[in-house]
Order: sequence, then C-alpha cells, then structure tokens
Amino acid sequence: MSQYRTFTAADAVDYARQFGGVDNPAALCSAEEIGDGNLNLVFKIYDDQGNSRVIVKQALPYVRCVGESWPLTLDRARLEAQTLVEHYKYCPQHTVKITHYDAELAVMVMEDLSSHRIWRGELVKGVYYPQAAQQLGDYLAQTLFHTSDFVLHPHQKKAEVARFINPEMCEITEDLFFNDPYTDHERNSYPDALEPLVASLRDDDALRIAVGGLKHRFFAHAEALLHGDIHSGSIFVADGSLKAIDAEFGYFGPIGFDVGTAIGNLLINYCALPGLLPPREAADAREQRLSDVHSLWTTFASGFLALAAEKTRDEALAYPGYSQAFVRKVWADTIGYCGTELIRRTVGMSHVADMKQIADPAMRTDCIRNAINLGRTLILAADHVEDVDALIARIRQAG
Amino acid sequence: MSQYRTFTAADAVDYARQFGGVDNPAALCSAEEIGDGNLNLVFKIYDDQGNSRVIVKQALPYVRCVGESWPLTLDRARLEAQTLVEHYKYCPQHTVKITHYDAELAVMVMEDLSSHRIWRGELVKGVYYPQAAQQLGDYLAQTLFHTSDFVLHPHQKKAEVARFINPEMCEITEDLFFNDPYTDHERNSYPDALEPLVASLRDDDALRIAVGGLKHRFFAHAEALLHGDIHSGSIFVADGSLKAIDAEFGYFGPIGFDVGTAIGNLLINYCALPGLLPPREAADAREQRLSDVHSLWTTFASGFLALAAEKTRDEALAYPGYSQAFVRKVWADTIGYCGTELIRRTVGMSHVADMKQIADPAMRTDCIRNAINLGRTLILAADHVEDVDALIARIRQAG
Repeated sequence: MSQYRTFTAADAVDYARQFGGVDNPAALCSAEEIGDGNLNLVFKIYDDQGNSRVIVKQALPYVRCVGESWPLTLDRARLEAQTLVEHYKYCPQHTVKITHYDAELAVMVMEDLSSHRIWRGELVKGVYYPQAAQQLGDYLAQTLFHTSDFVLHPHQKKAEVARFINPEMCEITEDLFFNDPYTDHERNSYPDALEPLVASLRDDDALRIAVGGLKHRFFAHAEALLHGDIHSGSIFVADGSLKAIDAEFGYFGPIGFDVGTAIGNLLINYCALPGLLPPREAADAREQRLSDVHSLWTTFASGFLALAAEKTRDEALAYPGYSQAFVRKVWADTIGYCGTELIRRTVGMSHVADMKQIADPAMRTDCIRNAINLGRTLILAADHVEDVDALIARIRQAG
Repeated sequence: MSQYRTFTAADAVDYARQFGGVDNPAALCSAEEIGDGNLNLVFKIYDDQGNSRVIVKQALPYVRCVGESWPLTLDRARLEAQTLVEHYKYCPQHTVKITHYDAELAVMVMEDLSSHRIWRGELVKGVYYPQAAQQLGDYLAQTLFHTSDFVLHPHQKKAEVARFINPEMCEITEDLFFNDPYTDHERNSYPDALEPLVASLRDDDALRIAVGGLKHRFFAHAEALLHGDIHSGSIFVADGSLKAIDAEFGYFGPIGFDVGTAIGNLLINYCALPGLLPPREAADAREQRLSDVHSLWTTFASGFLALAAEKTRDEALAYPGYSQAFVRKVWADTIGYCGTELIRRTVGMSHVADMKQIADPAMRTDCIRNAINLGRTLILAADHVEDVDALIARIRQAG
C-alpha cells in the first residue's frame, strides 16, 4: 500500500489529512508544490480558509535538476527525518518538527514555517536578523554536543554511527567539496576571467594537502551527528526565530564541518555584498556579517563548553580542560571547512544566490575572486588562527 | 544444531574432523586445551601420529579469569574471525589463516602454529628474532593501508565500519587504557612503593587532557580496520616468520593505536630487561629493542607511504605529499598510544610477563617505575617528537 510512487498534489493532500496531525484534517483541501531544491518534492498543504497548515516532503529517486540520469537513494528521506528528529530532541527551538515519516514512500510530514523566510534570501536582500547567528550557534552547540562522545554511551554512539551511515549523500559532499574545485572538472563553473586563479588552486601543494586532510577527516572522524549541509538556504528565519531544515546529508562526521559550513555561508554573503547593495548599505551589512561570525562562533563554543562542563558522561573527556582542548581542534577544522565551502560555492557546481544575483558581471567576478581568495587563505591558515578575533582580522585583511 | 554450547575436547576433535580442512580428517583423535587467555577455549587438535594439525578456538560467554560474573559477547568470535580474514587478504604472510567460522557456536578453526612461539615469551627469555620487528611493521602497513580511506571506496568503507562495530570489546579498551590507570580504581595493581608516582598521574592536568584526546580519537577516528590488541602476546614468531593472532578487539579506529600498542610492548620489554637478564645480556637486548622500535616504525611508515604512492584510490588523498602529512599525524598518535600501553600494563589491570617474571621485588619496582615514567613522558611529548631517532633519544634519556 505504501510502495513508492511520486506524489501528485492530490496525493499530498490525502497524505496530510491522514498524517498531518492537524485539527480538522478534512479541511485540508489543496497543495502547492514549492520545492526549489534539486532532490525533492515539497508540498505546502492549505485548508479551506487558504491557510497553509503543514508541509509534505517527498524524496525523488533522482537529482531533479539533472533528471533521471542521476539516481539518488530514497533512503535519504529516512536519514533526513531521523537526523531532524534527533536534533529536535536536543534543540526543539531551532529544528523543524517532523510529525510523521514513511520509509517506503520516502515522505515526511513537518510543521509549516510559512511565517519564516529562507535566510539566504534575506541575506541577499540585506534584511538583518540580529539574533539569527547566535541562534544558529546555539543549534550547533546543542545538536553537536548531545550526539558526541562527551555524552552518548559508547554502545549507543556506535549504534547511532551505524544508523546514520549515509554513503550516497556523503559521496556528493566528498566530490563537490573536496575534489571538483581543485581539478579541471566539467561540473565546475566560474567566470572565464578567473581561470588563472582557479588553475592556481590545482597546483598549490600546501592547499591540496590541506584539502586532502579535510576530506580525510570528513571520511573518518565520527565526532557527532552533523546536519551535513547547514548553509543559509537550509535555514528558516523570522523575527527572533531560526529553524534548521533539510538534513538529508546527516551523518556522524567532524563537528567543524557543520560549524565551518555555517560560517562559510555568512562569508559568501560578506564577499557578495558589494555587488548586492549600494556602498553604504553594503558596508553596514558586511559589518553585520562579521558580527554574525563572531556571535555564531562564540555562542557555539561557549555553549558547547557549558554543556561539556555540566553534562559530560565520559570520565576521561570530563577532565577539566579537555573540552577546551577539543574545541580548539574544532576551531581549526571549522576554519578549514569554511574555506572549502567558500571555494565549492564559487568554483564548483553549487552556486548560491548571493553571487548569482549580482547584476554587474565585472562586480560579480570581483566578488567571486574575493571569496575564492578568502577560501584559500582560510584553508591554508586553519591551524594558525588564534581565535575568532584573529579570524575577523584576517577576513578584513583579505578585503 | 549449532546452538551455542561450550566445547569439550571431544567436541573440538569432532569439529576439527568436520571443518579442519586437513587431509585424512579421521586421523584426528585428541585435543589439548591450551588457552592461557581469559576469554576463550583454545584446543590443539592432534592426529594419531601425535602431530598437532589444527587449532579450534571457541569464545566463552564470560571473562575466564573472573568467571561468569563478567559476561562478554560471543559476537567477538565473529569480529575476530572476520578481522583476521580481512587482514589475511592483505598480509597472508603475517596473519594466521582462518579456515572456518561458525557464528552460533562462536568457534573458528585456524592453522596450527606449533612451529612458532609467542613473541612475549621469547622477549622475556632474551631470545632475539631479528626479523620480527620489521615483519610486524610490514603487517601493520599492509593491513592498515588496505583497510583505510586511501584505498577503500567510500561506500565500502562505510559498510565495513558498520560490519566491524565492536562495542563490548572496545569498551574494555576504553576503560582499561584510558580510565582506570588515571583514577583510583579497584582493578589497578602496582607495587605499594609506587603509590606516590601513580597518584601523581591522577592530577597531572596536561597528562589527563592528552589521555582524554587519545580516548576521544579511539572513540571517533575510524581510520582503518585495527587488530585492536597487537601486543607481543598476540604474535607468534619463528625463525624468519611472524603471525598475528587474537584479533577479537578488531574495529575501525586510529591507525596509531595499533602501531603504538606494538611499539609499547617492545618498550615494556626494554624497561623490564634489567630485571630479566644479567647486566651485559640485558644491555644488548635493550639495544635490540631500540633497534626493533626503529625497524618497526620505519618499515611501517615506508611501507604505508609506498602503498599510498602506488595504490591510493581516492583522488584528494592521492595528492603528492598528503600521505606524508597523514603519516606524521599517525606518528604523533603512535607515541601517545604507546605511552598509554606502557601505563595500562603497569598501573592498570593487564600485567605482562615481562614485568611479572622479574624475580627481585625491588628490581621489579624499579623497572615498573621506569615504564610508568616513560609512558608519561611519551604521552606528554607525543606532538613534539620529530622522528624515530628523536624518540629513541628520549627513551635513552628516560633511562
């Protein structure tokens, strides 16, 4: 009965009536497909008053923008739903609520967030959410601490690592983050004028060796249950509210990958702002981004350390000073992964609105160049940046 | 039919006739139980000429020396057999051959190594096997490289990580290596005279933080399929031959754990030799141990690097220079884990013949003190020892 079939709008409405968990389900009467991603159908389900009440999301068995030639596991719907359910346990205030999930249909039902907007769109328009960076830091601290060796019993941790093994989605990251931008790959795309700069990445030995290390740690370091793709397009914001969505890349990996991806998307925006807003507004918004980076990291680090001081179950990891030593390693990883996010979003396949919406081609090229240079700087400097103030100084220095 | 029951000698003979894969199985007629470990029955199966032909090993559902009060998973027999089968694929010359395995009986049949002796016993007697250290380095290079991200496809690696999740055996290591010796635990045992030294370990902040990091990496860094317990009592030697056995601690962990355990057991012997042999022989044997350490590491490192140059499948990890950078990190881990092996074998529960067979109590205490001090030195210095020559200089300096 629940064998896989691609949902129509009518199917989605039926499903929401059955599993939406809303009052008066019979009032649900229409669905709008709003998916702008490449991997899924997303239906917003409306009641007879025209109010959106619930979201029905279904994984497609192929990459939507490429078509059926790039098949993709439906198991990612399970991984997404289960990652979000775990994260919701530890940070309900900043994780979308999943109310139902069906493995065979690869479908989940989740709370409607129509009162929110995708953060990236707001960042591109220059709309400032002064609490968002801190809330994201809090989300990262709560979810990553509570799924780490600090607090999980080793038996449970190992079982969770097995449950969240995510080969196909990880492979996308492994390729798009750590291979493509550093090789001459057909999936790459960047302005022609940047060919010399991009070519110089390919034979920068120190850079390539550092990227090798970041990829290896992405493969091997099962530190916590990551969101796995926590960029500004996977985050809804509203006044005083932030919700993470879209966790189909969830798996146990290095904590710095999530934190670095989050910071990297703030810095992409920082690099793009001169092309998006008039000079004075751009300058103000860039200061906001740097303040966001500061706030995100300090909230994450102080939150993680406070949780470690209070809740560490493991006896050896609880020794005073260890969590600080660990967070210093997470910091180095964070800077490195942040650099790879900047480069994969500008040289690689997965471009973002921050850059795409810059109208003037010369300005766009300049902004992309700055992002690539900043990415390279951060990857190379990752082990030598003292603290977040030193990071911000380096970002200013990079221009 | 194959539900678990503890084997008698007669059962073992029957089993060997069925599954031993020997010519003329009907000639197998008697069994001798030779297990000196704590966890298993080990039967040597003889034919009617009195020749031992094959080994039948069965896991017990409890820790033998403690009795039925410490239950232990029978799944460890699967993990042992499968680890040895994997290692045999990549290093048949130095891995015992498993010819049959039964999950329900937790029993395996393996080649008879009566022509060999346990290396630890030989080290205690001062019998030198000049090729053994190099052969062990080769075993570690082959098995750890071929089960690493350098060569396994990421999908296969993740599946293998799941297959070798080994919670109960890992927990023993997690507790006995990284907790007990640094706390006042009833399982610890050491000479009374060393109480002040052992007590000083417990509040050595830098030491405890470093041990926290080593434990955390043991939890989280799934770099390769480790043997997991590769000490000199898990190794058979003969003239020009070396075979690893007893891999029930096998799981995907940090490569430096296996290399450090192996070197640690050479250094335990180094520290014990003044109590085991007359002065001149002891001095000679100590030089052999240092030469063994040098040979083991250089064989491992050059072997791993040669394999990486030739066989790395992963594009990013294949970049020239990356494998060298990785091996430098393995080196730091190796020194740290080596230090924890020295301390857990002297302060913790799992003592070794090298120390136990020192007849004179005062001398034994001195040797144990030296091993503890060396262990502490290595854990603290792990990130700052340039190379194996610098390591050997530090060992000499430590006395």
